[in-house]
Amino acid sequence: MHLFLDLIRLRIEADGIEKICRRAAEIRGSRGGAMDNQDGSNDIENIEGTWREMERNASGFYENENDAGSVRQPLLRKRTMNTTSQIAIVGANVCPIESLDYEIVENDLFKQDWRSRKKIQIFQYVLLKWALALLIGLATGVVGFFNNLAVENIAGFKLLLTSNLMLEHRYFTAFLAYGGINLILAAAAAALCAYIAPAAAGSGIPEVKAYLNGVDAYSILAPSTLFVKIFGSIGGVSAGFVLGKEGPMVHTGACIANLLGQGGSRKYHLTWTWLRYFKSDRDRRDLITCGSAAGVAAAFRAPVGGVLFALEEAASWWRSALLWRTFFTTAIVAVVLRGLIEYCRSGKCGLFGKGGLIMFDISSNVSTYSTPDLIAVIVLGIIGGVFGALFNYLLDRILRTYSFINEKGAPYKILLTITISILTSCCSYGLPWLAKCTPCPKDLEEECPTVGRSGNFKNFHCPPGYYNDLASLFLNTNDDAIRNLFSGGTGNEFHMSTLFLFFAAIYGLGLVTYGVAVPSGLFIPVILAGATYGRITGTLLGPISDLDAGLFALLGAASFLGGTMRMTVSVCVILLELTNDLLMLSLVMLVLLISKTVADCFNKGVYDQIVMMKGLPYMEAHAEPYMRHLVAGDVVSGPLITFSGVEKVGNIVQALRLTGHNGFPVIDEPPFSDAPELFGLVLRSHLLVLLKGKRFTRERVKTGVKEILQRFGAFDFAKAGSGKGLKFEDLNILEEEMDMFVDLHPITNTSPYTVVETMSLAKAAVLFRELGLRHLCVVPKTPGRPPIVGILTRHDFTPEHILGLFPHIHPHK
Amino acid sequence: MHLFLDLIRLRIEADGIEKICRRAAEIRGSRGGAMDNQDGSNDIENIEGTWREMERNASGFYENENDAGSVRQPLLRKRTMNTTSQIAIVGANVCPIESLDYEIVENDLFKQDWRSRKKIQIFQYVLLKWALALLIGLATGVVGFFNNLAVENIAGFKLLLTSNLMLEHRYFTAFLAYGGINLILAAAAAALCAYIAPAAAGSGIPEVKAYLNGVDAYSILAPSTLFVKIFGSIGGVSAGFVLGKEGPMVHTGACIANLLGQGGSRKYHLTWTWLRYFKSDRDRRDLITCGSAAGVAAAFRAPVGGVLFALEEAASWWRSALLWRTFFTTAIVAVVLRGLIEYCRSGKCGLFGKGGLIMFDISSNVSTYSTPDLIAVIVLGIIGGVFGALFNYLLDRILRTYSFINEKGAPYKILLTITISILTSCCSYGLPWLAKCTPCPKDLEEECPTVGRSGNFKNFHCPPGYYNDLASLFLNTNDDAIRNLFSGGTGNEFHMSTLFLFFAAIYGLGLVTYGVAVPSGLFIPVILAGATYGRITGTLLGPISDLDAGLFALLGAASFLGGTMRMTVSVCVILLELTNDLLMLSLVMLVLLISKTVADCFNKGVYDQIVMMKGLPYMEAHAEPYMRHLVAGDVVSGPLITFSGVEKVGNIVQALRLTGHNGFPVIDEPPFSDAPELFGLVLRSHLLVLLKGKRFTRERVKTGVKEILQRFGAFDFAKAGSGKGLKFEDLNILEEEMDMFVDLHPITNTSPYTVVETMSLAKAAVLFRELGLRHLCVVPKTPGRPPIVGILTRHDFTPEHILGLFPHIHPHK
Repeated sequence: MHLFLDLIRLRIEADGIEKICRRAAEIRGSRGGAMDNQDGSNDIENIEGTWREMERNASGFYENENDAGSVRQPLLRKRTMNTTSQIAIVGANVCPIESLDYEIVENDLFKQDWRSRKKIQIFQYVLLKWALALLIGLATGVVGFFNNLAVENIAGFKLLLTSNLMLEHRYFTAFLAYGGINLILAAAAAALCAYIAPAAAGSGIPEVKAYLNGVDAYSILAPSTLFVKIFGSIGGVSAGFVLGKEGPMVHTGACIANLLGQGGSRKYHLTWTWLRYFKSDRDRRDLITCGSAAGVAAAFRAPVGGVLFALEEAASWWRSALLWRTFFTTAIVAVVLRGLIEYCRSGKCGLFGKGGLIMFDISSNVSTYSTPDLIAVIVLGIIGGVFGALFNYLLDRILRTYSFINEKGAPYKILLTITISILTSCCSYGLPWLAKCTPCPKDLEEECPTVGRSGNFKNFHCPPGYYNDLASLFLNTNDDAIRNLFSGGTGNEFHMSTLFLFFAAIYGLGLVTYGVAVPSGLFIPVILAGATYGRITGTLLGPISDLDAGLFALLGAASFLGGTMRMTVSVCVILLELTNDLLMLSLVMLVLLISKTVADCFNKGVYDQIVMMKGLPYMEAHAEPYMRHLVAGDVVSGPLITFSGVEKVGNIVQALRLTGHNGFPVIDEPPFSDAPELFGLVLRSHLLVLLKGKRFTRERVKTGVKEILQRFGAFDFAKAGSGKGLKFEDLNILEEEMDMFVDLHPITNTSPYTVVETMSLAKAAVLFRELGLRHLCVVPKTPGRPPIVGILTRHDFTPEHILGLFPHIHPHK
Repeated sequence: MHLFLDLIRLRIEADGIEKICRRAAEIRGSRGGAMDNQDGSNDIENIEGTWREMERNASGFYENENDAGSVRQPLLRKRTMNTTSQIAIVGANVCPIESLDYEIVENDLFKQDWRSRKKIQIFQYVLLKWALALLIGLATGVVGFFNNLAVENIAGFKLLLTSNLMLEHRYFTAFLAYGGINLILAAAAAALCAYIAPAAAGSGIPEVKAYLNGVDAYSILAPSTLFVKIFGSIGGVSAGFVLGKEGPMVHTGACIANLLGQGGSRKYHLTWTWLRYFKSDRDRRDLITCGSAAGVAAAFRAPVGGVLFALEEAASWWRSALLWRTFFTTAIVAVVLRGLIEYCRSGKCGLFGKGGLIMFDISSNVSTYSTPDLIAVIVLGIIGGVFGALFNYLLDRILRTYSFINEKGAPYKILLTITISILTSCCSYGLPWLAKCTPCPKDLEEECPTVGRSGNFKNFHCPPGYYNDLASLFLNTNDDAIRNLFSGGTGNEFHMSTLFLFFAAIYGLGLVTYGVAVPSGLFIPVILAGATYGRITGTLLGPISDLDAGLFALLGAASFLGGTMRMTVSVCVILLELTNDLLMLSLVMLVLLISKTVADCFNKGVYDQIVMMKGLPYMEAHAEPYMRHLVAGDVVSGPLITFSGVEKVGNIVQALRLTGHNGFPVIDEPPFSDAPELFGLVLRSHLLVLLKGKRFTRERVKTGVKEILQRFGAFDFAKAGSGKGLKFEDLNILEEEMDMFVDLHPITNTSPYTVVETMSLAKAAVLFRELGLRHLCVVPKTPGRPPIVGILTRHDFTPEHILGLFPHIHPHK
C-alpha cells in the first residue's frame, strides 16, 4: 500500500532538495506514512523471486490497504491525522526523516574484529573521546564568545549612533539610522537562513532534542546549518529583535559536536581522518549531548546548568559516564570564556565591556522572608504559570499561521522577517516617547542620565538631569534590559505604566518574532517578559511583601520559564549561576514548582510542542495507555522482504533499488539449516558496502568471515556520517554478476532484538525506546510458520500510525 | 545440582535469622550459588509429573553439574570465585538477597482491572504520589533537624563540661569526663546496632545504591533499621568519632520513603491503608530515590545537590518525571529546615545555635587567579586523587579484617566499637598537648581565646591570651572543625605541625572508624582530611600562589571527595551550596576532574567497592566485554519447572514447597493450543494468592477472568511490602484439593520479555539491565523443541556465575 508513496519518492529523488520540499508539500495529504520510507518494511512491490508472503492477523483494517493496484487513490488518508506531520513549520525544509540506530551490531565480522583489536586501540579510542570533549568545549566556548563580541560591538555601535543623533535632537534621523541598521541586519540574517540553511531558523533546541531521541531530520546538524546559526544569530540579536542567542548556542554546540565527531565535512573538504573512529550513532549521540550542554554553558556561563539542561531537556538516554564527560566539556567552556573575558578586560575588544555575557550580580542578600512574602511568591507563581501556558498556546497558533507564509518560498520568508523587524524598531523607538521624563534620583552613585553605556537611566529625549525609564529597557541590548530589571534596590526607578507597556510589547513581540526565518532563542524573550511581570507584581504586592523589586523580577522570570519550558532543576541552577545569589534558591524552586504545575494543566512544554508540530516522530519514555490493548502483531503492516543466508545478487540489488528499507531479515533455509530460521538482520548500508566489494560466487555456498576480512576491514562497515555513506547509485553491478551469489552471513547482525507477536504493544514500545532501537523483529508465537512476522520501526509506534489503523481506540484510555 | 544447597536452605529455614547467618557463614564454600534460591529456575528436584526435561547445548561444563546424585560433594566449588560474596562484611547479617522486579505485569486480570479503572482513581494515584513526596520531604527534614539538634546539644554539653573542667585545671577529670561520655555514647550506639538492626551499621549509601539497582537484601530498609539509623547516628556523631551523619541521613531518607511507600509497618502496628496503592517495586523505587535525595538535602542543606546525588550516585534508572518529583521533595526539605532553624534562632533549642547544619560562608571573593594558582590547584588535585585512592584501598583492607571480628557476634562488635572510641578520645584529648600555645593575634574582631563556643581559638591548657590551635580542631564537633579549616583570611592561625598531626590522625581514625558497628558516613572524615590536606598544600605552595588558605582547604576537600567517592557534578553542587561561593566553582570543577581521573587509574569508587564487598549482585549499565563471546543459552543452567495453563494443584504446591523459584513459565498444550507454546510467566506471589483463594475445579477446564475477579480484586495480587506477602506456610490445601485443577491463565503475565537462545549474552544483559527485569525467558531458535529453554535471572549475569561456568574466559577481553 505504500506503492503510491514510493513512486513519488523515486520520482522526486531525481530532483534537487528544494524541489523535494515543494513536491512533498503538494502531496501533504499522503504524508503521514512517508516517514518509514527510509525505515520500515511495509512496502509491497513485487520483487521477483524474493517475496515471502507472510500470513497476517485477519483484520478488516488491512483489507483496503492491500489493494495496491489503485495507485492514484490517496490510500493513506486514514493515517494522516496530523496534517502538519513531516513538515517543519518554522522555516525548515520538508525532507526525509531518518531514524538513528543505537543497537550494537554483533555480526561475525565485528566479533572477529573485536578479538583482533589490541589494547592500545581501545586506549586510543577512550583518549579520543576525551580529546573530542575537550575540542567541543574549546570550540563552543570560542564561538560563544565570538558571538557575544560581535553582538556587543554591532549593537553597541548602533545604539551609540542613535543616542548621539538624539543628543543632537535629530530624532527622525536617529530613527532612520536605528531602524535602517536593524532592517539590514535582519534581512541579511533572514537571507542566510532562507537560502543557505533553512534548518537553522528557530531555536534549534527542539531539533537537538529530537536528534538525541533518535530522529535524524535532514541537515539538522550540517556544517551549513552551523555557519548560518552562528552568523544568523549574530545578525538577529544585533538587529534588536526580541529573541535570544541561547537556543541557537545549544544548536551551535550540537553542530560543532557533530562536525567534530564525524571527522569534519567531506563536502567542504574539511576532514580529519584520525577523528573518524566515531562510526556509530551511539558515540555521536554522546558527543552531541556534550555539545548541547556546552552550548548552554557558553550562552549563560553556567557550566553546571549546562549539564543539567542536557540531562533534563535535551537527552533521551543518559548514563553516569556521560554526566562526567558532559561536565568536563562545560568546565572547559567555562575556563575558555573566563580566559577570553580576562583578555578583553584590558579594552582590546571594542565595545565589549562588562555587558558581554549576561551575568547579573543581584546580591540582594535576602536572608529572611515572612509568610506574606511567601503568599506573594505563590500568587506570582500561579499567574506566571498561566501566562506561560498562554504563551505556548499563542506561539503554536502563530507558528501555524507563519507556516503558510514560510512555505511560499525564501523571498516570503525574508519579507516576513523585514516586517517584524520594522515593527520591532517602531515599538522600541516609538514607545519610549509615551513615557514621562523622570528627574534623576539625588543620592546616587551611578551617573544619571547614562550616556553611551548601559544602565538604568537612559536620557532619550529628556533634558539633562532627567531620564526616560522605558528607553532604558527598549534602547538597550536584551541582556542589558534584563540586568536593569533585575537590579536591586531600585524599587521606584521604573514607573508602573512603563512596566505595563514594556510587558505588553515584549510578550507580543516575543510571540511574533520566534517564527521568522532567523535563529532565535526563546530564553531571552521569556526572561524579559517574566522579569517585567515580576517587577509589576512586586510593586502591586508591595504593601504585603518586603521583598526587593529586583528579586521579584528574578522570581517572575523563573515563573515564566517554568510556565513555558517546563524545566525545573536546570532553570533553577542556570538562574543561580546567572545571578550568583544562593539565598534566593528556595524561592526560585517554589516558584518553578508552582508555575510548572499550573501550566502543565493546560498544555505541553514549548519545545515538546514544536517537536510535535514539526512532525518529528519523538518517542516518549513511557508507552501510551491505549498501547496496552494492542499486541505487537497488530501494528506490523504488510509483508516484508527477506533474504536468504546466501542470496542472489540480483535479488538484493532489486530490493535495494525498489525500496528504501534500512533493514532486511536474513533467513537461513536448507541446506544451511534444518528448517527455515531467522538468522538475523542485515542493514542496507552494510549490503551496499558488501555489493561494492564484489565478493560474489557462482554457486550458492558460504564464503565465511575470513574471506570477507581479506577484502574489508570492519571499519568499512562502520556507519558513515550523515550524507556520506555509500548510495545505491554508487553501485556498479554488471549484468552477469546479477545471477551470482553473495554470502550475507558475515555481515548479518545475529542478535537482533525480537518480540513475540503476542507481546503487548506497550511493552514492545518500552523495549524499543529504552534500548534505542531502529528495528524490532516480530517473531511468530506458534510453530510451523515462517520465522519472522515483520519488523517494527519508530513509525509503527507513532500515535498517527496506530490510531490510523485502529480509529475506534480512545487515545487516552 | 542445587539440591545440596536447597536441602541446607530448607533445613535452616526452620531456625531463626541469627542461626541462618551463622550457618551460612559455615557453608561459605558453597555460597556463590545460593543467590538464586529466591530467584532462579535452576533446581532439579524431581517434582512428580511436572518435569519437562529440556534439551541443552552440548557443553562439557554442564556434565559434572548434572550428576546431582553425589549430594555431599561441594559441587559449586567452581562458582565460588569470590569467597566474600553474599556476606555483608560491615556488620550486617548474611541473609537472602532478593531481586526486585520492575517489569509491568500484563496479565488478563490486570488488563480487566485497568479497563474498569475510573479516571478519578488515576487522579488519586497521581495525587498520592505527590502527597508521598511531600510527606517524605517533611519527615526527612524533621528527622534531619532533630538529628542535628540532638548532636549539637549532646556534644555541646560534653565539650562545655570538658572545657569548664580544664579551666579549673582538673585535666585528668576532664579527660575522664570526655572519654567517659564518648565511651557511653559509643557503646549505646553499638549495642543498638548490633542487637536490633545490624543492617544499620556503616554508611548505608551502598545499600541504597544496590536497592535502587534492583537488589533487596534483608531488612535494608526495615523500620528497625530506620530507628537504629537515627539514634545510632546521633550517638556515634556525639561520641566524637571521626564519622559523619550524611551517609546515614541518605539511608534514613530511603527508609522513611520505604516505610511511607508501603503504607507503614504491619509488624509495629503502624499502617495506613490509604497509602497502600504503591504495590509495585517500580513505584517504590521512585519513592526511595526521592528519599535518598531528601537525605542529602537534609544533611547538607543542599536541595539541588541532593537531586544530583540521587541522579549521579544512587539511582540506576532515571527519567525526567522523577527529576521533577525529587526536586519537589528536596525543596520541601529545604523549606522545613529553614523554618525550624528560624524557630531555633530565638534560642529555644538549647545549645543548637549557628553551629547546627553545616553551612560554611566562605565568601573569599576570589575573582581572579593566575597561572601559578592553576598549577598549584592541579598539583593539589593530583595528590588528592592519590590520597583518595589510597583511602579506598586501605578501607577495603580494614573492612576485610574487621569482618572477622564482627562475624563473631554482637559482643565483639561492641568491644571493637569501644576500642575505637577510646582510641579516638585519646587522640583528640591527648594530641593537643603536643601543640604549642600561640599568642592571640592582636587585630581581631573575634573573641580570643574562644570559651564555650565554636571558633578558631580554643584555649585548652593555655594561659589567657593564648590559644591551642590543635584543640580548635580536635575538641569541636566535626562540623565546627571543618568550618575552622574553611575559614578565610586566617593563613597563619594553624601551625604547619598542627595541620600535619591533625591530618595524620584524621586520615587514620577515619579509616578505622568506618567499619565499626555504628551508623557512620564517609563524607565528613573525607572532607576533614581533605580540608587539612588542602591547607597544608596551600601553605606549602604559598610562595607561588596567592589563593587564600580557606579556599585551598575547600579545594583539598573537593580533591579528596573526588578521589574517594568519584562523584563529580553532585559534589560540586553540594560544595557550592555548602559554601555559598559561586566564584570558586570552576576551580572546584577542575580539582574534581583531576582527582577523579587520577584515582580511577588505581581502583573503583568507595561505594562501588563496598557494594562488591558485601556481595550485592549489582548490575552495571554496560555489559562486560567477555559477554560478547557468549550467548544467552550458554549461561542458562539446568532444566526448569514449568506449569500447564490449567495445572494440577498438587503439582503447584509441590513446586512451591520444594523450590524457592520466583517465576514459572506457563506452557499451553493441547487441547488449549495446537502445539505446546509458551503462554507466559507466572509469579510465585500470584500463585500463592490464587491457591489461597481456592478456586479449584475437578476437571481440566479454563475458568476465565470473570470467575477470578469475583473472588479477587487485582489489588490482592499487587506486590506486598517486604516481608508482608503471603508465605507458603500460610497455605492450607486439603488432601482432596491436591488432585483438583486450577486455571493459571488469568494471572499469567502474557508478555514476558524473551530472547532467543543464540542472542549474544552482552545484548541480553543490556536488555535485562535497561528494563530492570527479574526474569528473562530464553526461547529456542529452532522449531520443534519445547517452547522455552530456560530463565535468566540477575544471578546468571554475575561475573562469578559466568566465569565459574567458563573458567577459561579472560574477564577483561
